[in-house]
Amino acid sequence: MNAEIICIGSELLLGETLDTNSAYISKKLAELGIDCNFHTSVGDNFSRVKDCIDIAHSRANIIITTGGLGPTDDDLTIQVITEYIDDELVLDEESKRKLLNFFESIGKIMPESNIRQVYRPKSAKIIPNNKGTAPGIIVERKDSAGNPRIILSFPGVPSELYSMWEETAHNYLKQFSSAILKTRHMKFFGITESELADKVNDLMCQQNPTVAPLVALGEPRLRIAAKAQTEDEALIEIQKVESQIIDRVGEFYYGYDNQSFEEIVSDLLIEKKLTVSVAESCTGGLISSRLTDIAGSSEYIKSNFVTYSNESKTKYLGVQPNIIKNFGVVSRQVALCMAQGVRSRSDASVGLSITGAIGPTSPDDSVPAGKIFIGVCGQFAMDVKEVQLASRYNRIEMKYLACQHALNFLRLFLVKYY
Amino acid sequence: MNAEIICIGSELLLGETLDTNSAYISKKLAELGIDCNFHTSVGDNFSRVKDCIDIAHSRANIIITTGGLGPTDDDLTIQVITEYIDDELVLDEESKRKLLNFFESIGKIMPESNIRQVYRPKSAKIIPNNKGTAPGIIVERKDSAGNPRIILSFPGVPSELYSMWEETAHNYLKQFSSAILKTRHMKFFGITESELADKVNDLMCQQNPTVAPLVALGEPRLRIAAKAQTEDEALIEIQKVESQIIDRVGEFYYGYDNQSFEEIVSDLLIEKKLTVSVAESCTGGLISSRLTDIAGSSEYIKSNFVTYSNESKTKYLGVQPNIIKNFGVVSRQVALCMAQGVRSRSDASVGLSITGAIGPTSPDDSVPAGKIFIGVCGQFAMDVKEVQLASRYNRIEMKYLACQHALNFLRLFLVKYY
Repeated sequence: MNAEIICIGSELLLGETLDTNSAYISKKLAELGIDCNFHTSVGDNFSRVKDCIDIAHSRANIIITTGGLGPTDDDLTIQVITEYIDDELVLDEESKRKLLNFFESIGKIMPESNIRQVYRPKSAKIIPNNKGTAPGIIVERKDSAGNPRIILSFPGVPSELYSMWEETAHNYLKQFSSAILKTRHMKFFGITESELADKVNDLMCQQNPTVAPLVALGEPRLRIAAKAQTEDEALIEIQKVESQIIDRVGEFYYGYDNQSFEEIVSDLLIEKKLTVSVAESCTGGLISSRLTDIAGSSEYIKSNFVTYSNESKTKYLGVQPNIIKNFGVVSRQVALCMAQGVRSRSDASVGLSITGAIGPTSPDDSVPAGKIFIGVCGQFAMDVKEVQLASRYNRIEMKYLACQHALNFLRLFLVKYY
Repeated sequence: MNAEIICIGSELLLGETLDTNSAYISKKLAELGIDCNFHTSVGDNFSRVKDCIDIAHSRANIIITTGGLGPTDDDLTIQVITEYIDDELVLDEESKRKLLNFFESIGKIMPESNIRQVYRPKSAKIIPNNKGTAPGIIVERKDSAGNPRIILSFPGVPSELYSMWEETAHNYLKQFSSAILKTRHMKFFGITESELADKVNDLMCQQNPTVAPLVALGEPRLRIAAKAQTEDEALIEIQKVESQIIDRVGEFYYGYDNQSFEEIVSDLLIEKKLTVSVAESCTGGLISSRLTDIAGSSEYIKSNFVTYSNESKTKYLGVQPNIIKNFGVVSRQVALCMAQGVRSRSDASVGLSITGAIGPTSPDDSVPAGKIFIGVCGQFAMDVKEVQLASRYNRIEMKYLACQHALNFLRLFLVKYY
């Protein structure tokens, strides 16, 4: 069984509304093991919508549409489908009652235009909408070979789609589900996309689970997707591949799915009962902000410093002016002194520091944009790391990447020494 | 002239990557007055991609593809296009040189797989990519009636697409532009969407320029869109409507398009030759990070503090413990003491402070989540503001909104007192 998604609405084609429905539906279809081969977006135009349905019909068993169910004249989905399947448009009495009740419940008289929303093709079933005024429909047919040809239509408002999917569509579509698909994203740092691909090239050729590369800013990812009869079976298959990958490139692997560096570092700090203080120069507060994105961060953060000027590095962290003068403010030595200083002055278990040239200009002519030093200092160990970020990144990207490097360096330090 | 967009990548069909490229390109096409009638997403599958191009080719003068230009075997876009236009695949020497230079500049040896990325159809032109390793291509052909049939291919990474569009594609596509559409987004703060709509209701009925409401987190916007022959003509029409709007709701208007609070505050500080120091509690460094997103921020920022614990507010900002004890840490008094403290200790012209309960839990049971106090202190004036954010926002949204309120409060203070 395979499906296609058609999103209907001129606002999509003007770029004013971002289509998030296709991604939502695709994820839900994948979980049901129903393949989705195409997404199409089309404007509120009768013949173009009809053409899209016709093309999709020739390729897919299940067509899922969103949008075009509103009360205005440019909302055409039900009309197009009715004509396409050569059916008759009828008023759905049950939906009309619900609609009238809804307007009564909010103390308003139903605008006449809303009555449009409770018409359906005679042969269609209704998908109730408890979040809005437009019900959806299910049209069930078979092609000449007896294969199912199904159309499900939803409103374009995401919250309405989500609840209609959970309440009705998921259970309806289960009958077409042969297997479930489970995916896991493995996240790496410190290795390029192609280096990673070279290491797992053979795994990318297998059929189930599949392994595919994905890219995010500054870090490559691998998606493992397993098809199986049950979620547990799929997970076992994923874990087999995952451990093969960790055997090969485990030193660069840091987390999966939605795990972020700040979350992983936060978990480590709490587990090891440690506190951290951060002294930032070039990242300007971003490391601190990301660490405090995690609920409960007041457990391990008491005070952080943004020491942007040389003087503030001396005043608040105790970095000697002659060290800055002799080695430059973007240097291994200054990073280490900042980490030591912030740790001792704030009584934290660990001090983390960063100094660098984020660009577009550099604080020191001898330092190229993208050069950063990260310092970390604990009770019995300290370490410093030099990083050269590629100059093609803009200021915001460089700040983010510098922050990723710093949090990863802190993570590795915590794992190694605590 | 009309165009279609095809996004290539199996991750889109699994719902793992949200397609933001179609919306970006659609907006850019609308600016050029080029209609876009369809978006299609398709997986990394040779025959399906080819079918999509074939369908698009039958409907549109310009096909724009994104994705499938990576270094791995499942990146097929160039191969499909070459076969579709019945051309020969050739190595682009200039792109190869750039690629080798890039890897040299980051001190790495180019993985063999990257060489895939510098092949192109023989008849194609290259769209240089200064942000990544995959160049794009332009294929120019005509159909049997002599109408242009153009294909432009970009990588799927949004930042690469954006810069390639700005640097090359926009100028190239200008030749197909008949009328231009210029838009301006006016940004407001401190007024609700419906209050704003009520004030400009009549303007929303006009045809050219059109005025439409848009919503972003915590702030309403108005989009003014004017069609004209030239950009200057469109701008004049926009400015007429804009000044009508400012006459009515100017006190809530703070900037347009990409102007952010940090940019506006930065401009004010530089213009007035002032420095600022920030003491943050609940926002955890986000205000500092946003202010340092602006290039040249070292002109007006020397040192900022994240005083997350009560003790650090005393130690680094000199807030008396009995003030925290008597009034609570989330209070008007503590915010003012923090602003005074950070100003005097850092020798800045202006001190900005924030203390609040961001949730999910509160530092003080008597304080509801979403309650914040913002303090600002200059040489001859100081002020404090109390804000209650709606409880429906999550932690990250609350941090962002608290930051917006703080930067806006600082902006108004700078305008009033300096």
